[in-house]
Order: sequence, then C-alpha cells, then structure tokens
Amino acid sequence: MSRTIYMDHMSTTPCDPRVVEAMQPYFTQEFGNPSSHLYGLGNRALAAVDAARAEVARLVEAEPEQVVFTSGATEANNLAVIGLAREAMAQSGRKRVLISNVEHYSVLNAANALIRQGFYVEVLPVDHEGLIRPETLKKALNGDTALVSVVHASGEIGTIEPVAELAALAHQAGALFHTDATQTTGLIEVKLNAWGLDAVTLSAHNFYGPKGAGALILGKHLRPEPISFGGWQEGGLRSGTENVPAIVGMGAAAKLLREEREERARHMQNLGERLWQGLAQSVRFIRQTGHPTQRLPGHVSFWVEHVEGESLVLFLAAKGVCASSGSACASNFKAKDEHELVASHVLAAVGVPTDICAGSVCLTLGTGNTDDDVDVVLREFPAIVERLLSMSPSYADLLKNQGAKR
Amino acid sequence: MSRTIYMDHMSTTPCDPRVVEAMQPYFTQEFGNPSSHLYGLGNRALAAVDAARAEVARLVEAEPEQVVFTSGATEANNLAVIGLAREAMAQSGRKRVLISNVEHYSVLNAANALIRQGFYVEVLPVDHEGLIRPETLKKALNGDTALVSVVHASGEIGTIEPVAELAALAHQAGALFHTDATQTTGLIEVKLNAWGLDAVTLSAHNFYGPKGAGALILGKHLRPEPISFGGWQEGGLRSGTENVPAIVGMGAAAKLLREEREERARHMQNLGERLWQGLAQSVRFIRQTGHPTQRLPGHVSFWVEHVEGESLVLFLAAKGVCASSGSACASNFKAKDEHELVASHVLAAVGVPTDICAGSVCLTLGTGNTDDDVDVVLREFPAIVERLLSMSPSYADLLKNQGAKR
Repeated sequence: MSRTIYMDHMSTTPCDPRVVEAMQPYFTQEFGNPSSHLYGLGNRALAAVDAARAEVARLVEAEPEQVVFTSGATEANNLAVIGLAREAMAQSGRKRVLISNVEHYSVLNAANALIRQGFYVEVLPVDHEGLIRPETLKKALNGDTALVSVVHASGEIGTIEPVAELAALAHQAGALFHTDATQTTGLIEVKLNAWGLDAVTLSAHNFYGPKGAGALILGKHLRPEPISFGGWQEGGLRSGTENVPAIVGMGAAAKLLREEREERARHMQNLGERLWQGLAQSVRFIRQTGHPTQRLPGHVSFWVEHVEGESLVLFLAAKGVCASSGSACASNFKAKDEHELVASHVLAAVGVPTDICAGSVCLTLGTGNTDDDVDVVLREFPAIVERLLSMSPSYADLLKNQGAKR
Repeated sequence: MSRTIYMDHMSTTPCDPRVVEAMQPYFTQEFGNPSSHLYGLGNRALAAVDAARAEVARLVEAEPEQVVFTSGATEANNLAVIGLAREAMAQSGRKRVLISNVEHYSVLNAANALIRQGFYVEVLPVDHEGLIRPETLKKALNGDTALVSVVHASGEIGTIEPVAELAALAHQAGALFHTDATQTTGLIEVKLNAWGLDAVTLSAHNFYGPKGAGALILGKHLRPEPISFGGWQEGGLRSGTENVPAIVGMGAAAKLLREEREERARHMQNLGERLWQGLAQSVRFIRQTGHPTQRLPGHVSFWVEHVEGESLVLFLAAKGVCASSGSACASNFKAKDEHELVASHVLAAVGVPTDICAGSVCLTLGTGNTDDDVDVVLREFPAIVERLLSMSPSYADLLKNQGAKR
C-alpha cells in the first residue's frame, strides 16, 4: 500500500507530537479539576489552564482575560454570533445581523437560529474572487445593525477577507464585528486589538493542536450572553469542567505556532504555488476558486468542468491522497438529506456555474507535506481527470456538439 | 512531602492508563476528521467514534443510535433540559418543567434559562435524606408538564434517587423524564430502556475517562431541539468536529467500567463504610448528609457543627488529602460573587441548619484508594476538627452558654 499523503488540513491537522507530550501529564497525574482549587492538584490544573490562556492570548495579540476556552470553533462561533447579537439587542435594541455568503455552517446556522428569535439576518455577497468588498458592507450597515460576522478566510476557497477594514466600518455604524479565524490562525497573523476585532474564533485542531479545544477571544469588556449554563467556568461564559489536557495542548500549539508560523507559511506558500501552477498547466478544464493572490498559503482550490468534485476526491483517495470537496461538515448534510451532489453555498457565492460545476477540490497543505507529495499529485491528477472526463455525460455532450458544429 | 491522597472523585477522576493508551493513536496518526470520510483516514476516525458509541450505549443498555456525544455533562444536561423542553412545547404546547432541589448547576441553570423563554419551572423538594418522594412528584405533575429532570445521585450528598419509579410517574402524566447520571454511572447500574428513561447524561471524566467527552443518551425516536448549530454532526444534535481521541477514550472507559463496575463498587463500598464508621466514632459534632444506606458506594459526606466545611478541606489538603466542600462548580460561583461561605443549595435542600452549618465535606473514594488512605484520614481528621473547634466563635459561644447553665 502506498503512503498516505494528507492534503486536507482545512478539515483537521495532526496533533504535533510536542503538543501531545505537553498534554500527557494532564490525563493520569495532573488530572485535577480546575474548579477544585482548594488543594494542590486542582490548583495546578487551574494554573495550567491559565498558562495556556496566556499563550493563546499572545497568539492573537490579546490579553489572557480576553480568552474564553470552548470545546471548539463551532461552539465559539455560536457564542459569538448568538451571544453577542443577543447582548447587543438587550443593550441597544439593535436586531440586524450581517454575515457573508461564504461563512462556515456554524456561523450560518447560528445566524439562522437568531432569525427564529426575532433577529433579521442579511447575507452579504462576496465578489467572484470571494472578497467582501468594503462598499458592500458599508451599504448594508445601518443603525439597527447589532453584529457583523465575516470569516477571516473560508477553508473552501481560501480568500483572505479584509477584516480590519470591515471591523472599522462596522464600528462606524455602532455594530460589533466577529471573525471566524479557524482557517487563518495557523497560517497568517491575527491581531485582535490592533485590528479592532470584537471577537475572534480559534480552533486548536486547525493549527496542530488537539480536537476538543477552541476559543473565543473577546474585545475588552465585551460580554456575550451565555448560550449554555452551569457551573460558571470561564467567567460564566462557558460552563462545564474545563478540558484541561486539550486546553494545555491548545496552549502548547499556540506557542509553537507563534514561534514557527512564518517558516510554516513560507513552506506552504512555496509548495502550494508549485502545486497550483503544475495543475493549471497539466489539467484540462481546471478553474481556480477564490482569490488568485489574496489567499491562504498552501491553499489550492479549484473545480474541473464536467467532472464531479467528489469523484475527483475519491479517485485521489485511491491513490493515497487525502483531499476534500468543500467543507468537511457539508458531508453530514449531504448524507442526511441525500441531496444530489451540487456546488456548495460557498461555490455558488463566488459564481461558479452550478449547471456545469458539481463540487470543487481543495488541496490544503500542511507542515508535513513535501515536494514529493506535490510530485505525486502532479503525476496522478491529470490522468484521474482524463478518466473521469471519459465517463462524463456532459463532456460527451460537449464533444458531440463540437462534432456537429464542424 | 507526603503522598497525595485523592478523595474527590465526584469532582473528577484520573484517566485510566488503559484509556490513555486507547486514545493515543488518534492524536498524531489516526487524526482524521470523521466528517471527511471520503478517504481512509477520515473513515477510520468515523469508525472509531462509532465503536465508542456502541460501547457507551452498551454501558446503559441502549442502542448506539441513541447516543449523542457532547463535550461533557454540562452540555448534555443543557441539551436535555432546554432541548427536550422546547421540543415538547413545540409538539404539545406543554410548558412546565420540574426539577429537584439537589440538581447540579448545569440542570438548575438550564432550567432557569427556560424561565426566560416562557417556561414555568417548579423545584421539587427532597426529604431530609435527599430523596425525592414519588408522591411529591405525583402531586406536582399535571397536563402542562413537559419535562421532569431529577439527578440520579447528587455528588454532594450521594443519595440515589428512584429514577425508574419517577420516570414511570412522569410518563403517566405525559411528561418526559431526564436524569443526570454523571455521578452514578461509574458506580451503579444505569439502564436506559429498561427503566423507561427518556434521556440520561453521562460524563467520561467521572468514570476514569478523559475530560472533554460526555453523552446524552436519548429514548428511541426522541429528538431534542438543538442548542448549538453548525455542521450537523451527531445527527444534527451536536455540531462541531467530534473530539475523536476523547470519544475513543470514553468508549474505552465505558468498556472497562462495564467489565469492572461490580468489583470497583464493592471496593469503594467497603472502604467508604470503614471511613464513615471511623469518622462517626472519632469526630465530635459530625453529621452525615444524604441517605444512610441508599447512597453511592464510597461516598462519605458530612458536616461538622461549628466548623466551616471549606476550612476542613483546606486543612485536609495540608495533610495531602484532596476532598471537597460541595460541588466543584460552586467554587466558581463563590469566587465570582464573593459570597460568604454558606451551606449550598443542596445542603439547604436536605434541611441542614444554615445558622450552624457552613459547608459540608465530601470524601468521594475511587478505584485507586486503599485501606492506608482511609487510615490517614481517620488519623488526621479528628485533630483537624479539634483544632478548628478551638478557633470557632460559635463553639466558644456554646461552651460559654453551657458554662452559664451549670
């Protein structure tokens, strides 16, 4: 069996062995509950959580007290969107929420939940390269806007949004600004206070930390309405016994990331450019999605006319290459509703023609990928496309029509 | 420095080394996202989650499809109380929720959140031994009752509630029945379907599994309204990338528990009885809380007249013994609100006189405790009590009054 080549780092990343090592003592030895801080064991667990809090804060240039640990990005996005909107409504009566049309499902569906609670949600369109234009936001903002939530970069198309600029516009209208930085933190800078962001979502397992830990980093003195209730952990904003090992792991991953981010990004940028250039030259009917330059390093996303994205991913899997066709979470939706394979809401957002596009391919590189990995994809992928084209009814139609025209 | 003697297993338990070993591959090697199941790595993660699901289901004699994995007991309790009540209201218009007055904060505060959403919450009193009497529930039930939530056993007093009987009464009135089995699962049987329970909360880190994993086990075909929103994981009931290592760990812990529960319980029962009998004979002014016999094995809880529970716990900590004064979560509340040290809502519920009781002591034993551990506590504790009595103003008053009477 051939080696597995993992190129789906937007779905999840492997835990860094140094992170696992840092977590290790907190399972069997330092297993205390941070809320049980009347004795040393609990107290040391509390100290470990707070040390991780300081590391995570430093990663986004914030203060430790701005960090709320959650079970992951979905919970953080829910707390941000629902919690901040409800708090804003309680304080100012504002009840409009603006999101983009390339948000992750956890922002999109949290916003939908707000509609059932009396909010108005407006979905702002991105341009064909995936950018929210500042003038689009400006026009949509008004005195009733409570919250704007725009993803820092969609994992599906990789376009980096100008969140600092968008935050400034939101603030001019008296609205709060949240960004889901799940896909960006591991690759590019995120500066909470300097950029004027009111809330930022982080996910540890997207930057070589463990699953089960995320964070919402909040602007100073901002307090969303809690969305779950219990024992007042995390200042009452996220109740439940802290997942100490995972939080410690998130802290360790944040520290490593801070030290290595530039180097990692450079590595991925180089590999990603080689991969995309190679594919663009050798694959017929290939079309990049997202922005050509203002995009995540190592993020290669495209679709192929006449060929289903999911078929391409399955054929790549057969060659040992792990890729994705859109957001991982979308797979649950499709499985549940038995929808046909269609372009996702993100692809529709950037204007891919849904009559000839049935899903994209995302090759998202990571620290462990090598030039050899890129070579394998460049060697295998053109043949996969040709094979699928030969089975494609729409390609057959095209050939027939071309023959008829001659 | 003396050895640490951990006797706060209701707060959290150490992860079993066999559990940690089972989790290990899922950090760095088998790190796939279960939603990315178009390739082997993701598919194997999905299979691992489903294997754990089967183990957790078997633990409570339910089917795998009844298991919803959550980030822990707090989230499971929130989903049960808020989600089931809202679903019942949507289906039948019922809007009353009954809980006991010895619930964990995550049930209590989830119920309080329902009040703000138009529900009526009634808090049922337990008797002085901590039992909800069936006639108490029967009187409170009516055609408007959507949900009854009664803890299987409070960690603070250890009394085991007759949940099967209570569930039958709830059903007679057309209401759903949920129980928080966080404290019981590791020690006594929990039978979901046979007992007619509609929802049961489990917490892995309370039975030697990892923090960050819990479950809500639901009656067949029951579907609470989700309380968070995203990528439709767990059948849409709990969105967010699954915490695969922790879920695998929960499965491994469930399997070990199923095989060893009787033996563990017997061990703890024996130690617990020796500990309580020893303390009862050697400590002045000691008063047991909870039920004398219908209580968790290895659960020793009491208060001492004239002496603060928290002081006792601190002095025990100085001797290397980890104990608690009530629920761990309560410590966050106290810290936050700077309340004076008072008897908890659970102690008040069982009628301890709040003028002379300032907090209880819970010594909750675990698999790792030995006869030697019990000996240490029996040796040290009476002297701690005497020392604190000598500093107690209320004890001084008592002596003065007794002297005056003579």
